[in-house]
Amino acid sequence: MNTEKVISDLQQVRENAPLVHNITNYVVMNSTANALLSLGASPVMAHAVEEVEEMASIASAVVLNIGTLSEKWIEAMFKAGKKAKEKGVPVILDPVGAGATTLRTETAKKIIDDVQPDIVRGNASEILALLKADAQTKGVDSSASSDDAVEIAKELANTKNCIVSISGKTDYITDGKSVISIGNGDAMLSKVTGTGCAATALTGAFAGVNKNFMEAATGAMVVMGITGEMAGKKADAPGTFQVKFLDALYQVSDKDIKSKAKIS
Amino acid sequence: MNTEKVISDLQQVRENAPLVHNITNYVVMNSTANALLSLGASPVMAHAVEEVEEMASIASAVVLNIGTLSEKWIEAMFKAGKKAKEKGVPVILDPVGAGATTLRTETAKKIIDDVQPDIVRGNASEILALLKADAQTKGVDSSASSDDAVEIAKELANTKNCIVSISGKTDYITDGKSVISIGNGDAMLSKVTGTGCAATALTGAFAGVNKNFMEAATGAMVVMGITGEMAGKKADAPGTFQVKFLDALYQVSDKDIKSKAKIS
Amino acid sequence: MNTEKVISDLQQVRENAPLVHNITNYVVMNSTANALLSLGASPVMAHAVEEVEEMASIASAVVLNIGTLSEKWIEAMFKAGKKAKEKGVPVILDPVGAGATTLRTETAKKIIDDVQPDIVRGNASEILALLKADAQTKGVDSSASSDDAVEIAKELANTKNCIVSISGKTDYITDGKSVISIGNGDAMLSKVTGTGCAATALTGAFAGVNKNFMEAATGAMVVMGITGEMAGKKADAPGTFQVKFLDALYQVSDKDIKSKAKIS
Repeated sequence: MNTEKVISDLQQVRENAPLVHNITNYVVMNSTANALLSLGASPVMAHAVEEVEEMASIASAVVLNIGTLSEKWIEAMFKAGKKAKEKGVPVILDPVGAGATTLRTETAKKIIDDVQPDIVRGNASEILALLKADAQTKGVDSSASSDDAVEIAKELANTKNCIVSISGKTDYITDGKSVISIGNGDAMLSKVTGTGCAATALTGAFAGVNKNFMEAATGAMVVMGITGEMAGKKADAPGTFQVKFLDALYQVSDKDIKSKAKIS
Repeated sequence: MNTEKVISDLQQVRENAPLVHNITNYVVMNSTANALLSLGASPVMAHAVEEVEEMASIASAVVLNIGTLSEKWIEAMFKAGKKAKEKGVPVILDPVGAGATTLRTETAKKIIDDVQPDIVRGNASEILALLKADAQTKGVDSSASSDDAVEIAKELANTKNCIVSISGKTDYITDGKSVISIGNGDAMLSKVTGTGCAATALTGAFAGVNKNFMEAATGAMVVMGITGEMAGKKADAPGTFQVKFLDALYQVSDKDIKSKAKIS
Repeated sequence: MNTEKVISDLQQVRENAPLVHNITNYVVMNSTANALLSLGASPVMAHAVEEVEEMASIASAVVLNIGTLSEKWIEAMFKAGKKAKEKGVPVILDPVGAGATTLRTETAKKIIDDVQPDIVRGNASEILALLKADAQTKGVDSSASSDDAVEIAKELANTKNCIVSISGKTDYITDGKSVISIGNGDAMLSKVTGTGCAATALTGAFAGVNKNFMEAATGAMVVMGITGEMAGKKADAPGTFQVKFLDALYQVSDKDIKSKAKIS
């Protein structure tokens, strides 16, 4: 995949402001909404079982993030996800904390089986936990390298017929056959909460303008990584980094993407 | 309305730190609390049906914001709102996303009918949706201009006996008879999540010190617009803008208001 | 207690990244997670009754914060707290808003009696409300001085067999017998929401590496106060202060602690 496609997808996001319907965790709702706004998308959060189908129906993408689960929210995720699939609206799943508790692992697996999300995006531990019974996640932080999760990601993509996107030092995106790797990013991204969740939301924005989900997932991670690098150049601590990261999502240019993208 | 009243109301907020009880959406709780603190008010969030009446009773204003609804929260909003009205505590409603889903539109209408809020503050799409069955909101972002909503706002104010405050390029505040327009603001305000919700919360703070709700609603929108402009001068991207906006709420002076206010 | 212990505890946090399981309020989830990450800890938020025991079991500390209560969350706090105590995982309680509503006061008291947290950390009004029936809290802001709460804190520590940590102009930590006072801090801390909650979360991180809870509570408040001072030197308004505070938590050095700590 070349950088031209990332650039044109980003332009599409900025021109069309796709409505991204998030059912996501409490911790990152604000930062996720701001990341989507800075990118150029239009975020909405809605979780009531009474309204999620209606909201999903008018959305350009639906993002399901299991970071702070409870019974009613799980019900809402299934409702929103199924309605989205029925309407041809892309569904992206972030299995936050899969591998840390049984509730998270089982809910993520059930969403994959019953909703059949188009893209699953998580860290290495989370992706491993979706197929390996003995994988363990330290809360919501990965205890594995993304390199170690590539084979499992391919298997997951193949068996579940979805794109799998793993974040880490190197990001990997796979459809089960080919694997794209992205070398962009900044270590400081792991010192700010919700950057993984933001990556998933951006993936939703890209999927909202490009139904080739391998490309959409790649575009989002390239922009995520490059804006992380841009922020890292202006900040040497997490508070400032977070601010500069939002700035970079708004400011990242075609030229930035062309000159900085490390896709192979 | 002259700027002197805005200035004296702001002084009152800073001196008395009115307790603003918010039942608001998850996305903006943090940014709303920080906006109120920066202004000089004292925010509290409480949504449990078991405690909202008690909290509303000791508050100077109650703000109901339907941005992330669910059944229990709706019940709490009615309880808090009715108790507040009974105690003479001002109630402000933000019908976030009215027009996007039936649940939001119907809940907002029912709160207006049953609780009878003193001020309704929303964007143009949301205000239109409260009276026009065919109005449509794109998630929580307005798809209409505030200019187009003025007549409906007047009708709403008249029939429901409340002040209606519409944010947009120009802000309009009406009691159904006269209309005040405010020309302050900055385009970047729409690139940060929760600035509309912050405007509603500030309206609560002003209503907490001034029972002339037309003046209170105006004061809040003037301060909102001017601090947006102050932030816009120091920031060219949303991350930094958000930080500078909170700074400006804390720093905005009598002189700033006097020299910058565009009220007509 | 000398500063050497604070320094070595902070090093332990940075080296071991203790997993701090928070059941906390919606307002501060993001800022709390970021404070813990900046300090060097690993935060996780989980509140579902179906998973809190499992999460508490793998955590290094459990933080219970009653800032936005509801029935299910209270149930989860008891489950998580009891499981943590059973496993020898430290439990820290922040009685946010105790004294403002009956629900908060009674829930905080019941957690203290039934869960027996190792450390209770709050502002003066909240601590007073736990033992004095006539104490009143203005929402979540203290209406009393920390100096006035020391005797009640000692009584609370003695009768409930826990460490009590009161934040204020001077912070006090007591085990019921001795009292440590800390003179660090910055007035701007009270203009940003969730700094008290962050202090409680940092207390959890320190308790995750030091089972002498008097020392852990002291270390957290010293780091909190010093990083507040560092931020205050770089910011004269709340928006920027909040950013610089997170930066300072990441940057605070052994030398900073040695030269700035005011412990007596």
